[in-house]
Amino acid sequence: MAIRLGPNQYGKAEVRVVAVDRSSPRHTLADLNVSTTLRGDFGAAHIEGDNAHVLTTDTQKNTVFAFARDGVGEPEEFGLRLARHFAGSHPWITGARVAVESYGWERIAVGGQPHDHSFRRSGGEVRTAVVTVDGGREHVLAGLAGLVVLKTTGSEFWGFPRDRYTTLAETRDRILATAVTARWRYTGTGIDPGFGECFAGVRGTLLETFADTRSLALQQTLYAMGRAVLERFAEVAEVRLSLPNRHHFLQDLSAYGLDNPGVVYHADDRPYGLIEATVVRDDAPPAEIAWLGTPGFC
Amino acid sequence: MAIRLGPNQYGKAEVRVVAVDRSSPRHTLADLNVSTTLRGDFGAAHIEGDNAHVLTTDTQKNTVFAFARDGVGEPEEFGLRLARHFAGSHPWITGARVAVESYGWERIAVGGQPHDHSFRRSGGEVRTAVVTVDGGREHVLAGLAGLVVLKTTGSEFWGFPRDRYTTLAETRDRILATAVTARWRYTGTGIDPGFGECFAGVRGTLLETFADTRSLALQQTLYAMGRAVLERFAEVAEVRLSLPNRHHFLQDLSAYGLDNPGVVYHADDRPYGLIEATVVRDDAPPAEIAWLGTPGFC
Amino acid sequence: MAIRLGPNQYGKAEVRVVAVDRSSPRHTLADLNVSTTLRGDFGAAHIEGDNAHVLTTDTQKNTVFAFARDGVGEPEEFGLRLARHFAGSHPWITGARVAVESYGWERIAVGGQPHDHSFRRSGGEVRTAVVTVDGGREHVLAGLAGLVVLKTTGSEFWGFPRDRYTTLAETRDRILATAVTARWRYTGTGIDPGFGECFAGVRGTLLETFADTRSLALQQTLYAMGRAVLERFAEVAEVRLSLPNRHHFLQDLSAYGLDNPGVVYHADDRPYGLIEATVVRDDAPPAEIAWLGTPGFC
Amino acid sequence: MAIRLGPNQYGKAEVRVVAVDRSSPRHTLADLNVSTTLRGDFGAAHIEGDNAHVLTTDTQKNTVFAFARDGVGEPEEFGLRLARHFAGSHPWITGARVAVESYGWERIAVGGQPHDHSFRRSGGEVRTAVVTVDGGREHVLAGLAGLVVLKTTGSEFWGFPRDRYTTLAETRDRILATAVTARWRYTGTGIDPGFGECFAGVRGTLLETFADTRSLALQQTLYAMGRAVLERFAEVAEVRLSLPNRHHFLQDLSAYGLDNPGVVYHADDRPYGLIEATVVRDDAPPAEIAWLGTPGFC
Repeated sequence: MAIRLGPNQYGKAEVRVVAVDRSSPRHTLADLNVSTTLRGDFGAAHIEGDNAHVLTTDTQKNTVFAFARDGVGEPEEFGLRLARHFAGSHPWITGARVAVESYGWERIAVGGQPHDHSFRRSGGEVRTAVVTVDGGREHVLAGLAGLVVLKTTGSEFWGFPRDRYTTLAETRDRILATAVTARWRYTGTGIDPGFGECFAGVRGTLLETFADTRSLALQQTLYAMGRAVLERFAEVAEVRLSLPNRHHFLQDLSAYGLDNPGVVYHADDRPYGLIEATVVRDDAPPAEIAWLGTPGFC
Repeated sequence: MAIRLGPNQYGKAEVRVVAVDRSSPRHTLADLNVSTTLRGDFGAAHIEGDNAHVLTTDTQKNTVFAFARDGVGEPEEFGLRLARHFAGSHPWITGARVAVESYGWERIAVGGQPHDHSFRRSGGEVRTAVVTVDGGREHVLAGLAGLVVLKTTGSEFWGFPRDRYTTLAETRDRILATAVTARWRYTGTGIDPGFGECFAGVRGTLLETFADTRSLALQQTLYAMGRAVLERFAEVAEVRLSLPNRHHFLQDLSAYGLDNPGVVYHADDRPYGLIEATVVRDDAPPAEIAWLGTPGFC
Repeated sequence: MAIRLGPNQYGKAEVRVVAVDRSSPRHTLADLNVSTTLRGDFGAAHIEGDNAHVLTTDTQKNTVFAFARDGVGEPEEFGLRLARHFAGSHPWITGARVAVESYGWERIAVGGQPHDHSFRRSGGEVRTAVVTVDGGREHVLAGLAGLVVLKTTGSEFWGFPRDRYTTLAETRDRILATAVTARWRYTGTGIDPGFGECFAGVRGTLLETFADTRSLALQQTLYAMGRAVLERFAEVAEVRLSLPNRHHFLQDLSAYGLDNPGVVYHADDRPYGLIEATVVRDDAPPAEIAWLGTPGFC
Repeated sequence: MAIRLGPNQYGKAEVRVVAVDRSSPRHTLADLNVSTTLRGDFGAAHIEGDNAHVLTTDTQKNTVFAFARDGVGEPEEFGLRLARHFAGSHPWITGARVAVESYGWERIAVGGQPHDHSFRRSGGEVRTAVVTVDGGREHVLAGLAGLVVLKTTGSEFWGFPRDRYTTLAETRDRILATAVTARWRYTGTGIDPGFGECFAGVRGTLLETFADTRSLALQQTLYAMGRAVLERFAEVAEVRLSLPNRHHFLQDLSAYGLDNPGVVYHADDRPYGLIEATVVRDDAPPAEIAWLGTPGFC
């Protein structure tokens, strides 16, 4: 019997870098959480404790800060710069994955005018980017997490099979609520009209489709959202969505002599449904290892 | 030696009630987290396990849902209805405290138009209300939590005393960031022009003052924020603010041959400064037990 | 109308200091989260941004680390050393509050023997200490949080009043579960036989009493726990307990043709009951400001 | 251009089931968090909103509770029962994945004797099991998460390459701390001497190896831990470990005239190193889809 090292990777997680652009009095701000991961030949470190190949995670952290000195641009671009650097830095490093979370800030309005250097966090939503460089191959995943949406009507759920354990009543009208986690893979690493505009366009499409789709199942809503993105953005190869079904149960008030015509609900924490799917373009370039290490259907 | 029961209270915490107003096709939504607390003569339950006085926490929960059937209105109003009900429900219940967290939702824009029944959570910020009814006395505290703000310049910190343990350098320009928790006490329970408008006004005042104040200390910013609220809103008796100083440290890049003229910062998690103060109006009516059970300088 | 600064305080929160005692090959470890708060005359900082009185929170942090150089001892003792230092450091500082969270570590067993320098975190439970020094007065609160307990029987709940909104059935047998947060005030600052032994004794008493008390109400269990502590520990002046009632609902399986004789439960997150009370000794010295800034019934 | 549905799955997440065995006065307790996931032909639900194939997540939840009526046994066994049921329940369901988190409880000691029906949560650590049934193939992953360990000496880190961005000093003695997440795949679904004993044995091996290994790199510690498990447990095919490097930085006290010979450290939150690797047996049966949907190196 032989025991051996299998797949492995390492890096620095959650480097919280904030970069300010002061090139004009109207400052801008990038607020990022960067995690770097290296892959390659690190067998000696594992088996013998020989660190000759180990580009330390402290060095990775320093590199993130140093690269931010030149400005970060879009999260996808910052990830590409870092991943290319790491993947090319030593012969034994064959690949790098850089994951970026980006937190949004809006200008505070003072007297109706957006302030030059004072900001307000725009909410719990997070923009994400994952860049993987592996030898000559490069992949970019964009995404978002924590986009919480709800519709008070326009959602049905019926026609499902019933077995011994089925007690759920069919409904033609329910609250539908979810927290969207979406990731989409670009067909390349240079996107026209740019990662920022494309992100905004996809995000808007996800929101509009959620709002406008009469839902017969959360699965159907999910697919419609992914499909709409692919129809509008040729540079998107595939979309992966993870949608928790945040149940809002109509509260039974009859014991107190009250009806409840869709007025009072209980928002439940757990358990919740969890619907996950990929929507893909037939002619998409192969994903290769684009999703390695990123939750999804890898 | 005698042992006795001291101050005590009990209730149901975190009732997650969502109420939908469908009176027009343009739905509105109230999304609340309600915690009720009762005070009074509950000695027998503690000492003998005799529950004859214990209005059960399950009943309190049911009451919250039942009262939501008629609509919830502003969080302060919903709290007042509930607290008055509980405080008057049995002779041995002398007081009630109802705390409400309210989560904001914005309409999703479809084709540039706000949708009738599809919404997006407006962020991590929470609007709060605490109503205390104690015999004939009634108090209303409004507030907010999780309002994260940052300014990239316009903040100094110097002139502080130095002792053996002081190593901090003085600065004429730093990033100032905090997550505002604010609570303010109203002079009465009927506010003109209404709790909703007053909340929006105070929130806007806090934001504008944070943005516009050149900061010499977070204490000074805090006081300016509280003072501005009292100056603009006669119906506010006092403001209490708790401001964590979320440190952004300028990253030293000199080891890599780079300067760092206010570009690259590390956002640190812990430790953080914590600045807390009350700003009050001299002629404010007495707070009595308005703050009992609510973090602050009670 | 005059606006003025009311009560205020500031400090450094969550200094994560780990101190190792290497005086023998059998190392010991103190793992603390320390928050310091100063009170006094800080009006100029708030009103004019004059920091001449502001012992910076950075200095407070440095002081915590420096004081740990001599070892930390029991959390209460470390808090006393720090609070006395801060309260006496400048004439305008009239008081200090030092809150300490202590995380427990157990030695890893290797071949049945506790290891000299390898440890395992002993769980989610936290030991707490709050020391307040105010002029010549000193107070010590010890405590714990996150002590999660459950009994599968020996808990009843009946005899409560019923109103229009009451639907709860009476029960002679239910699961009782809670996460104990307890704080107790010592009669002095020098405790015999020491803070460590006293903490262990109080903790054991809380656990034993929870286990051994046939519960007719969580209020009754709470009171019995506090009373037992006061009966056994003369150096404890009062005990404050906050007990969430973590509901475990018997699951109705009848729709699937199954009975459920106390076998299958659903552990619910929210809402939960919340029972809070103080148990005091009649001849206890006055609490003065011992509880200022610490949740409880101040 | 054609757009199509790619890989997809759905289920009910986080069913919090607690099962009590009252067959003797000495009760036992299983406290589980169960998440079920189904795979198969669910295209119509996504594309047309036709739910004829959708075994509702509500039914999945009911099934979990109903199956617990017969007792749950080891988490792996409960997962196998559920996954086999779901995978065989309808022709269009081709596979099921059941993930179980199990929370430990210890008996409270009263007078030195473990109590019959009163328990204390044994900490933040979680035992995990993931069962995947896919057609005729069955896989069982056991694991644990949140096992926090630390050694105060016996850890070095030196010999790493240096580049422009490297500033880290080499060290022959540092604190090493991590929170172990481990998952191991069994060679089959019937393990002798049983899942419970095997879990305890693997857990003990991980702890002992962490304690006893002189560490030259966290990678080396990780590999030694995985290797030891494979050496001692023939029924384990592979081990995957994810080890955050929770940095403890020696605090520089020289500015206050103090040395610091390994006494005072700052426990930092972020960033942290993250070391992940698989240790495998050469003759292990193929993993197939055992890891699908479970973080790891899929």
